[in-house]
Amino acid sequence: MTFCELCKLHQAQWKTGYRLRSYVNQRRDTKKAGHAVVFMLQTPSKAKITVIGGGSFGTAMSKVFGMKGYQVCLLVRDPNIVSGINNDRRNPKYLREFALPECVTATSNTELALERTDLVVHALPVQVSREVLAKVSPFIPSGVPVLSTSKGLEVASHKFMFEILQETISTDGNRRPLAFLSGPSFAKEIMQELPTAVVIACEKLETAKQIANMLSSPTFKVFTTTDYIGVEVAGALKNIIAIAAGMAEGMGLGMNAIAGLVTRGCSEMRRVAEYLGGSPVTLSGLSGVGDTFLTCFGPLSRNRTVGYRLGKGERLDEILKTSQEVAEGVATAKAVVEWLPSILNTTYTRALVRFPILLSVAPILEGKLTPEEGMQQLMAMPPTVED
Amino acid sequence: MTFCELCKLHQAQWKTGYRLRSYVNQRRDTKKAGHAVVFMLQTPSKAKITVIGGGSFGTAMSKVFGMKGYQVCLLVRDPNIVSGINNDRRNPKYLREFALPECVTATSNTELALERTDLVVHALPVQVSREVLAKVSPFIPSGVPVLSTSKGLEVASHKFMFEILQETISTDGNRRPLAFLSGPSFAKEIMQELPTAVVIACEKLETAKQIANMLSSPTFKVFTTTDYIGVEVAGALKNIIAIAAGMAEGMGLGMNAIAGLVTRGCSEMRRVAEYLGGSPVTLSGLSGVGDTFLTCFGPLSRNRTVGYRLGKGERLDEILKTSQEVAEGVATAKAVVEWLPSILNTTYTRALVRFPILLSVAPILEGKLTPEEGMQQLMAMPPTVED
Repeated sequence: MTFCELCKLHQAQWKTGYRLRSYVNQRRDTKKAGHAVVFMLQTPSKAKITVIGGGSFGTAMSKVFGMKGYQVCLLVRDPNIVSGINNDRRNPKYLREFALPECVTATSNTELALERTDLVVHALPVQVSREVLAKVSPFIPSGVPVLSTSKGLEVASHKFMFEILQETISTDGNRRPLAFLSGPSFAKEIMQELPTAVVIACEKLETAKQIANMLSSPTFKVFTTTDYIGVEVAGALKNIIAIAAGMAEGMGLGMNAIAGLVTRGCSEMRRVAEYLGGSPVTLSGLSGVGDTFLTCFGPLSRNRTVGYRLGKGERLDEILKTSQEVAEGVATAKAVVEWLPSILNTTYTRALVRFPILLSVAPILEGKLTPEEGMQQLMAMPPTVED
Repeated sequence: MTFCELCKLHQAQWKTGYRLRSYVNQRRDTKKAGHAVVFMLQTPSKAKITVIGGGSFGTAMSKVFGMKGYQVCLLVRDPNIVSGINNDRRNPKYLREFALPECVTATSNTELALERTDLVVHALPVQVSREVLAKVSPFIPSGVPVLSTSKGLEVASHKFMFEILQETISTDGNRRPLAFLSGPSFAKEIMQELPTAVVIACEKLETAKQIANMLSSPTFKVFTTTDYIGVEVAGALKNIIAIAAGMAEGMGLGMNAIAGLVTRGCSEMRRVAEYLGGSPVTLSGLSGVGDTFLTCFGPLSRNRTVGYRLGKGERLDEILKTSQEVAEGVATAKAVVEWLPSILNTTYTRALVRFPILLSVAPILEGKLTPEEGMQQLMAMPPTVED
């Protein structure tokens, strides 16, 4: 019996740890199934992955696939990034301290990047995604799965990434399978090859498993789910929670307050997801509480910085004037104030009772409420049953 | 219409924030119900609360009740703590930098402490609880509720606090109502009057609400639930997750790894709780992920320190030799290795597949597995569906 590269790698991994031996025996069937699943890409060195977007996360994804031996082609606009990757094996703009594997190349030519590709990874900011996806769509071969790593709500339309993808590249005329990757995963730590666990969601579990097998390595662990709604809701709404957590931090309210706020914020996200058909298991998983707590307790992110400065008493326009990068949560918070009451078919004031954290960030951003008033309002709500 | 002290306070709170006004109108019925619930203790200054245990958390609880105007009596063995509180309004051993309200007193006399008390708060370490509770039980007036703030598994019996309480003070002969408080709540921050949110669980929701009303203040927010099983399971098992998180930290594995480990650990806790009849909502709430993430990302706790030092390569006996305080998680991890497979009616090896984090900490503590092997074992498990 011969094994493919992936199965060999898994075999090597399975040898680790004496306790695992009996585990392997129990899972022999699963292992065989796993072997069957990867038939499409038995020889990684011949399979091609196209990564759209040369930012931090796109670069990190190209490294993970590259380390598994796949032919990775990064599609980027910036010619400096193209030449940096092709000549020096480094992205000169993002995470330049880390070298990329030999099999990673870059181009600005859409047709070339997507020609005979086996998997497309989408790693562009949400707000520019619709435009770019519409342009590249004709070049993505029919039936090729698209894995999205972008998270957020499109401000103009109040739509999630999965809806943008459905409307641009997975239309009725060409229903390319859509998958979504999320979880607590700083790009820098992925580049450092530090252990990372993520979840891939796809309506068809087999597709999620297939991509999971392609990405899995001893330092990159991939779980699967069919609940892309849950993954998408958490990915978009967590940025609002991050702003709120930053505010509490800026106001010097302590760790109890931040942990309480983030936990209650996660409960609100769960309720939104459940309303849209998502599963509470997803929201309490890697893409939900995992990613949210990392964003809220890890190094200061863009969203948390905005919240922190608001908590210190600065006004949003002052903050935005001196920020170089866009904090996605600012737009999302404003969008949610309109979107959430409308999907719940209720008024803002009524929705506020159930979603006081998600719906209080926008009025604070707009200066209608101070961070102190927002916090007092939260604390003043009468005792209720935890839900 | 006249209002009791508590309702007046809530009224004052409800006036905060202009958006809250319509909310109050909607909740008028609830408010009325809230008013009815606190009838038992209309005059806080005449109601008596007995706190058993003068450690950090017992001291913090006496401050919260004291600030609401209740007559708080701390039952402590140490005569220094008794005289410190009665003469200087400070606990000389724990959190001495914070003064206690005038209405907080202390005694070593069990009979005096529990005489005509209206509520007992239990704040002793789990491992000494059974002995103390058996002694004080005859002095607790019949029908008086007992609120436990202690968390963990009794090593000798593998029993939770609720079971210990059932066997000592809420026996068939005198079924005193039992309630359980948990959530992300560092005692020091409670003493600093920083905002804190917790959950109180009681089989009878009305009792939980009653105690929640007694504790609630503009800086102390109390949610309620009937799911004491969920609260108890999280409270006990989170210490094991904290050791695991500390190990990852000591090994320098980065934030992705810690967040992933803690999230997956919380999923394991949820599955244990569900098996015992607890609710997933509780486990994704304040007492579950809230408290666990605070323990794992906040200032280094005792449990995380043990893990951290193991991760740095020290052996457990070396660590214990140089530690002054007991890390509850060490005993819990060892107990769980026997207890969990037995309640699941399976072997350790089979249970390990479903609970790899909860069940791998003990072998590492015992030196049968290195932290590196433990982590490799976790990462090497083949891709699975997130659950």
